[in-house]
Amino acid sequence: MSEEGFTIWFTGWSGAGKTTIAIALEEELKKRGIRYVQRLDGDIVREGLCSDLGFSKNDRNENIKRASFVAELLSKNGVATLVSFISPYRNLRDYARENCHNFIEVYVKCDKETLIERDVKGLYRQAIEGKIPEFTGISDPYEEPLNPEIILNTADETLFESVKTVIEYLDKNGYI
Amino acid sequence: MSEEGFTIWFTGWSGAGKTTIAIALEEELKKRGIRYVQRLDGDIVREGLCSDLGFSKNDRNENIKRASFVAELLSKNGVATLVSFISPYRNLRDYARENCHNFIEVYVKCDKETLIERDVKGLYRQAIEGKIPEFTGISDPYEEPLNPEIILNTADETLFESVKTVIEYLDKNGYI
Repeated sequence: MSEEGFTIWFTGWSGAGKTTIAIALEEELKKRGIRYVQRLDGDIVREGLCSDLGFSKNDRNENIKRASFVAELLSKNGVATLVSFISPYRNLRDYARENCHNFIEVYVKCDKETLIERDVKGLYRQAIEGKIPEFTGISDPYEEPLNPEIILNTADETLFESVKTVIEYLDKNGYI
Repeated sequence: MSEEGFTIWFTGWSGAGKTTIAIALEEELKKRGIRYVQRLDGDIVREGLCSDLGFSKNDRNENIKRASFVAELLSKNGVATLVSFISPYRNLRDYARENCHNFIEVYVKCDKETLIERDVKGLYRQAIEGKIPEFTGISDPYEEPLNPEIILNTADETLFESVKTVIEYLDKNGYI
């Protein structure tokens, strides 16, 4: 089994399933004997890395830049690195792609209607009511990936199917 | 050979030899078959992680906090992590110690007279002339480590001897 590191970069709207998939994927990779798997998301980096940042465009970009730097160091050092950020801007995802080792962009796609209907955290309702400013998809843009390595349509597929798609990609490309 | 990660935290005055020793140690570890070795210092983290930070006490502390977070992730994921920062404040080094995996504090010690005499980068002269404010040892405090795992007296020993001391420690404690 290869000990090569890689970066899986999950991008997509809030509530589309990025972190849920990353957590399930982490579990699956560990079951398959991958010893070093590290997830990165807003909750994980906030305290140690980004306590000074808010949600403005500049702050989001700085957030992504720092996460990308950490993913770069981890993936270059043999770690299976799973990054979940809305990361709405194409140029910042391209920045991550340029810097990270074995970069795999995964577009976690879900239509707006489904997201608003589910609204697990109640954020979409608040954003629509104007209580959350600069909310991706409502009051802030999301630039879709042009050539992501993987697209997961989470409105139509189960968590099991999404994880299976990623695992098959990793397997086929010799990462696991 | 173990694949266990660890964090070697080099602390000490500017010019004492922290980064020089870290570079030589990195080379030696790789020669011994340690595949993943990552150095972290001010130059390495500045662009990707700390572009917003200056040299005030708060900024230095934030710098150390972020570097410590990255060292934590790397060392927990099997990487031999070599961190070189003046890191003058004891509580911040203790913060790093609490968070990083297999933390080894190395006090790179050199007396002030020798440092001022060498003054490789000309920084001490400028600091003494008041051209660099908040300079550790001149206009800013350095809190000596109380119980570092290793002390390297770089005024009296060669680079080879310093690296040998660290390698012997790692070997004796089962890290390599």
